[in-house]
Amino acid sequence: MTESSTVTRFDPRVHATRLTRAADLAAERDLAGLVFGTGPDLQYLIGSAVSSHERLTALVFDDRGRATLVLPAVERGSLADCAVGEVDCAVRLWEDGEDPHLIVADLLDIAAGSRLGVGAGLTADHLLPILEATGAAPVLAGEVLRELFMRKDDAELAQLTAAGAAIDRVHARVPAMLRPGRTEAEVGEEIAAAIVEEGHSAVDFVIVGSGPNGANPHHDVSDRVLAAGDVVVVDIGGTWGAGYHSDCTRTYVLGANAEAEAVYAVLRRAQEAAVAAVRPGVTAAEIDAVARGAIAGAGYGEAFIHRTGHGIGLSLHEEPFIMAGNDLVLEEGMCFSVEPGIYLADRFGMRLEDIVAVTADGARTLNNGDRALVAAGAGEH
Amino acid sequence: MTESSTVTRFDPRVHATRLTRAADLAAERDLAGLVFGTGPDLQYLIGSAVSSHERLTALVFDDRGRATLVLPAVERGSLADCAVGEVDCAVRLWEDGEDPHLIVADLLDIAAGSRLGVGAGLTADHLLPILEATGAAPVLAGEVLRELFMRKDDAELAQLTAAGAAIDRVHARVPAMLRPGRTEAEVGEEIAAAIVEEGHSAVDFVIVGSGPNGANPHHDVSDRVLAAGDVVVVDIGGTWGAGYHSDCTRTYVLGANAEAEAVYAVLRRAQEAAVAAVRPGVTAAEIDAVARGAIAGAGYGEAFIHRTGHGIGLSLHEEPFIMAGNDLVLEEGMCFSVEPGIYLADRFGMRLEDIVAVTADGARTLNNGDRALVAAGAGEH
Repeated sequence: MTESSTVTRFDPRVHATRLTRAADLAAERDLAGLVFGTGPDLQYLIGSAVSSHERLTALVFDDRGRATLVLPAVERGSLADCAVGEVDCAVRLWEDGEDPHLIVADLLDIAAGSRLGVGAGLTADHLLPILEATGAAPVLAGEVLRELFMRKDDAELAQLTAAGAAIDRVHARVPAMLRPGRTEAEVGEEIAAAIVEEGHSAVDFVIVGSGPNGANPHHDVSDRVLAAGDVVVVDIGGTWGAGYHSDCTRTYVLGANAEAEAVYAVLRRAQEAAVAAVRPGVTAAEIDAVARGAIAGAGYGEAFIHRTGHGIGLSLHEEPFIMAGNDLVLEEGMCFSVEPGIYLADRFGMRLEDIVAVTADGARTLNNGDRALVAAGAGEH
Repeated sequence: MTESSTVTRFDPRVHATRLTRAADLAAERDLAGLVFGTGPDLQYLIGSAVSSHERLTALVFDDRGRATLVLPAVERGSLADCAVGEVDCAVRLWEDGEDPHLIVADLLDIAAGSRLGVGAGLTADHLLPILEATGAAPVLAGEVLRELFMRKDDAELAQLTAAGAAIDRVHARVPAMLRPGRTEAEVGEEIAAAIVEEGHSAVDFVIVGSGPNGANPHHDVSDRVLAAGDVVVVDIGGTWGAGYHSDCTRTYVLGANAEAEAVYAVLRRAQEAAVAAVRPGVTAAEIDAVARGAIAGAGYGEAFIHRTGHGIGLSLHEEPFIMAGNDLVLEEGMCFSVEPGIYLADRFGMRLEDIVAVTADGARTLNNGDRALVAAGAGEH
């Protein structure tokens, strides 16, 4: 039933390739150096999940592309859990009392005014002292090196595919969990257990939005008791393998609800049209416009109150964001959600979400469970 | 036994006072504006624990001290859980497709080159676009307004005091949990349960470092089986009430260990001397020097491999950091750990940690459990 015996670390060659590409792209894009903090950037580049709070951990590339991990000495135990020892990356441990920002500046050794690529997650308490010590002109590394982070390599696509299949298995179990008389919270606990049972290493989030709660896209769970006829939005995800995420929404109905069926037909057509529009060369904003246009055309434009989707990988939400104004051009290997929704305040909401990977031929869906308004709770209560 | 029915939200007047002080101090210190992101800053100022990932949530003060919370519209549900509706703070919701960084720049409305105070936790993906849109010269707000964040008010001192008493109750139960034949992980699970039973809302961390594992200050737990004579470092903490943290270390010994007793006497004298040195007007570095000098004087200088302490509040680790080079002058209301340790590689480690609050008369200890090398596991196995 489960596939929990999955890859939790990539072959060091995967990381070696990423480091080389980062350095090459930085040189091509006229960056004199790169600095990344903990989080998805560090996990992507060297497979390190170290989290060092207020003590700076940073991966630094100098203007010759040489990489150094700057790590608090108290975190040296984390070195065994990442690829640093097996790839071309130096390590500079620092002790309490040393100034790690000066260490970074020394490693960078760049002229004031040089363009420095900075990881999105680097926090002000580290970024500002580094800028002060270097006089560098910062730019977001993710924007300059976007194909590096946004285009998933084969190892990443395999992880996201496996994660998608796992969350599909959870959704396949949800109809049996949704019964009149149970609370959202009770269902949510059972779903959380299933997320782990189906092979995820952690539960990221569980949304069970029944009836009027479904009309709030960021509702999680509550003590509301499910009743016959309820429309229930179930948006769930977990962490898989080497740290990649699943994220999938299906909408369920307890028994029959003719009005919801009619609105859902609009939503489903919009989501399918948006997925069908995905291919290299189309912009993120165009995908959003397809979904939004289909919903607006049916008279529900005001009820679709969020963007159409978000990228996914080592972060649950990352570029490319599928929304108005984002002229980013889709490329092969990008992975993101397509998740339009219709929210009728005080009544009910619905959302249909699949993760897709951009291929030369269009979208490959990483979620493939039933996309209908799924009947649940039949014959009970 | 428990005190879980504690304050989880402060009176809105507490937040109103903090907002006014932030604005007043910014004006005094020649800051044209302030921007804080999610995390401890937002929690401190307006009691909001909202976490908005890639969508910007920011609290902005303009040059007249007017505060506005910039919040993604999808997070509007979080407004009910914070003090914003009850204090003098505007709300600017933004929809997907709007550029929140331009909204912040409009609210700030400052001249290029103006000094802008920035919260420590604001990430580069938000900070850099805000700087680009404003042309402001950023400084860390926490450094300019340090007395605001570092000096705890009465509401905060009450929280930290209660949290300290709760973790003391957990340590009082630890000797009965430490028995030869159990693994560190088993003991850790029991401690985690006790942290919640004693009233914490969450477990932050549990370190059970037995024998050689204790010589790694950042070890957590392992499958190592406890044996008679083991020295065991137990460093634990949780989240309390309105989001404040506990953090306390005691060192235990299973049965008798004469060598450990002798080394521990050095550690205890060092920790007590450092606590006794705490008073307004002394620097953080001086406290560190007292602990370090006492340990070095007994010949263990090389075995004390980390700073002496860290501030604590809504963050587990924050300023003031008690370490060499930090000339920050202690003031009444500052709260921090005093936690020297002695680590003998491959053999054992020990640490003694209390949280202290600076008063006019010196340190008030917020942890008050037995500070001896506590005997455990006697008569078992």
